[in-house]
Amino acid sequence: MQRREASYKQPRIFTISNEISPASRNRRGRAAIRAACYSRVRMNASGTDFEFMKAALEEARVAGEGQEVPIGAVVVVEGAIVARAGNRTITDCDPTGHAEIVALREAARKIGNHRLTGATLYVTIEPCAMCAGAMIQARIARLVYGADDPRAGAVRSCFSVLDHESLNHRVEVTAGVLADESLESLRAFFAARR
Amino acid sequence: MQRREASYKQPRIFTISNEISPASRNRRGRAAIRAACYSRVRMNASGTDFEFMKAALEEARVAGEGQEVPIGAVVVVEGAIVARAGNRTITDCDPTGHAEIVALREAARKIGNHRLTGATLYVTIEPCAMCAGAMIQARIARLVYGADDPRAGAVRSCFSVLDHESLNHRVEVTAGVLADESLESLRAFFAARR
Repeated sequence: MQRREASYKQPRIFTISNEISPASRNRRGRAAIRAACYSRVRMNASGTDFEFMKAALEEARVAGEGQEVPIGAVVVVEGAIVARAGNRTITDCDPTGHAEIVALREAARKIGNHRLTGATLYVTIEPCAMCAGAMIQARIARLVYGADDPRAGAVRSCFSVLDHESLNHRVEVTAGVLADESLESLRAFFAARR
Repeated sequence: MQRREASYKQPRIFTISNEISPASRNRRGRAAIRAACYSRVRMNASGTDFEFMKAALEEARVAGEGQEVPIGAVVVVEGAIVARAGNRTITDCDPTGHAEIVALREAARKIGNHRLTGATLYVTIEPCAMCAGAMIQARIARLVYGADDPRAGAVRSCFSVLDHESLNHRVEVTAGVLADESLESLRAFFAARR
């Protein structure tokens, strides 16, 4: 957690567009686009983004009470939450039981389609490779997350899973929404376990 | 499928060691190690590897009969299969229902632990980011796969999810085992759908 705290004193809200421009089809063009995204801080998170992130934080809180790592996620379709979950790895004895995976599976079951086209996933921390990959499989339209995860984040910290030139799907990303609250709950959880 | 066929006329069996050497902690050292792994073809797949891959191919065949993409996986612990699965994305209405995920979840349930330390996962094609990420979460010891997937493979084709310097777990990888058989079943499946 020390590394997280040190790296993310000033959380920023930024967006990666989901448009596949001609420039994005070659490596140099994509690097330029990514650099532009990173350097420009765009406060484009809406009021509802904060409301849905609060719901994800509430799921994180409940997960932490159950001795799971306090991470929470909600899936929103047409302005309404269709699924919500916290981490359930230990509870369900399931290595894939991250909040995002549980929420995506639940949303697909409710909607009756394994493609969640148009859905937005809110999660309190930058998704790992497994969860970012699941978002590609589910074809979600947008991801909103809180704090970056320098150790395992697969949106921009360790990998750029949502943004590979060979993938035929792009996910719009907004990061940094209520990042301090997310980090604080993780910090308190790990401090209590030391 | 055209691209796959063109790129993989001569499948090779190679291994990435799971040792974390000092050189692997910096980018240049890791690049050198990866280059060495790629240039050296090591025929270290054992007879049992071929047997277990045949079991995975059988799961792929059954999945294909159910109109799923014919990919199969088995999880082996101490020389015995503890879980086997084919793709179930459509059958279960589950965006995460890839063969690897289904098999890992089943293995964890049977063993009663979400960490599958010492397990080997056999899968007919190079795992995507979601599935490779799940292998990190499950802490499996070894991955054996058949054909590479140039479009979405997350072991070496598009991403190197199992080999990132910030991850505290390494997975030993053997690739190219019965790759032709895997490609042939995928080729036949997609040809029939055209």
